[in-house]
Amino acid sequence: MSDFTGKTEVSNLKPDRKQIRQLKQVLGFRPRKSDLYYLALVHKSAATKIYKNPRFNNERLEFLGDAILDSVIAEHLYRIFPEKDEGFLTQLRSKIVNRETLKRISLKLGIANLVISKVTNDNHKSVYGDALEAVIGAMYLDKGYKRTKRFILKRIVDHHINLKKLSETEIDFKSRIIEWGQKNKKDINFTCLDESAEHGKTPFFVSHLLIGDEIIGIGSGTSKKEAEQNAAHQALLYLENN
Amino acid sequence: MSDFTGKTEVSNLKPDRKQIRQLKQVLGFRPRKSDLYYLALVHKSAATKIYKNPRFNNERLEFLGDAILDSVIAEHLYRIFPEKDEGFLTQLRSKIVNRETLKRISLKLGIANLVISKVTNDNHKSVYGDALEAVIGAMYLDKGYKRTKRFILKRIVDHHINLKKLSETEIDFKSRIIEWGQKNKKDINFTCLDESAEHGKTPFFVSHLLIGDEIIGIGSGTSKKEAEQNAAHQALLYLENN
Repeated sequence: MSDFTGKTEVSNLKPDRKQIRQLKQVLGFRPRKSDLYYLALVHKSAATKIYKNPRFNNERLEFLGDAILDSVIAEHLYRIFPEKDEGFLTQLRSKIVNRETLKRISLKLGIANLVISKVTNDNHKSVYGDALEAVIGAMYLDKGYKRTKRFILKRIVDHHINLKKLSETEIDFKSRIIEWGQKNKKDINFTCLDESAEHGKTPFFVSHLLIGDEIIGIGSGTSKKEAEQNAAHQALLYLENN
Repeated sequence: MSDFTGKTEVSNLKPDRKQIRQLKQVLGFRPRKSDLYYLALVHKSAATKIYKNPRFNNERLEFLGDAILDSVIAEHLYRIFPEKDEGFLTQLRSKIVNRETLKRISLKLGIANLVISKVTNDNHKSVYGDALEAVIGAMYLDKGYKRTKRFILKRIVDHHINLKKLSETEIDFKSRIIEWGQKNKKDINFTCLDESAEHGKTPFFVSHLLIGDEIIGIGSGTSKKEAEQNAAHQALLYLENN
């Protein structure tokens, strides 16, 4: 393993005194490798437009922070729900680690205010949440796993995540996509085929979700409901990314 | 945070002396919380059939281990490829952390030999790889992040992963699905629509992958090739899981 000190990053820019004070307030500690946190706040639009260097952006740190966040949440759920199976844990984690929740937390922690970007958040829905993940990546490189875990559990999970409520809420993707259709005046249709016969009689359904006559989501499951939920989930991801 | 000691797991079964010796050989150290490693080796088919307790299986530990493995690989790639962007890192990680590679490593490390299962691996392609991830989860709970990271980097990455070769290999999903079709005598077809006009003239393509007349993959991209690759990738995931 190479001994990474942050020097291999393209960052020569460091936060000024005011920015360090702001960072300290948000993080709850004084950052050591402050250039990493600065980089964590730079959206790629600013990298190109302000710094004239497309590589000076937070995407690599976001990649790292995303993984660390996933781990910490995985362990936390594993510990506090000893009776629950893997399916429950996976689903609950995806309710915590998703674009909307991360954006909300980024705003509440004050990270969103520090983001350096040339796009409005409305166009790029993930700017604030991505910056939160990038800050977690920077923190991991600066302070290590344990300290970052403490930050995530104390400052994020304890304060801003209602695990009980989340674990009881079912995400209804089908309702969401139908709402989206109504709002955007698009005709949403589901088809559902029972393919049980081809699967040795185990119940097996395949659902297609269509906007007009274009299929934008496919899902399968052991019930019609599950197949449609999966198709709707895929369609929502498709719409988010296009 | 609750202080997890493994007691909340359903495991009362511990490995016997011979099994502990085998574990030690595989891990390179003597496990402390040996019941966790034992649990990590139990596929759910054995939980139901042998232990008469469907909850006595490795799925929860696999959930945890999967996240830890992702983090460690993320950090490793982040450090050794300082010049590469997030897209490269994500793609390279998915070439490392996938069913086939994990199965291969599980076999090489000797973990596969210790798996307790009532299914043949041919039916459940992920049994061995899942057990590897579960062992990583057990190790994390037993020894902590640093020690687990060292295991992953020294015993897995250094010995069994050729990063240079992997980073140069492009995964060609389209060829793979066509091969699959030939092998399974299924007719694979792609349709591709140029939807650039609807996307403000940015190049934008949508591809559907059909087996017979059933759509099993959809993909989009800024080129026909990218859209088809994405559709093929989705179709392969669909086939793997059904």
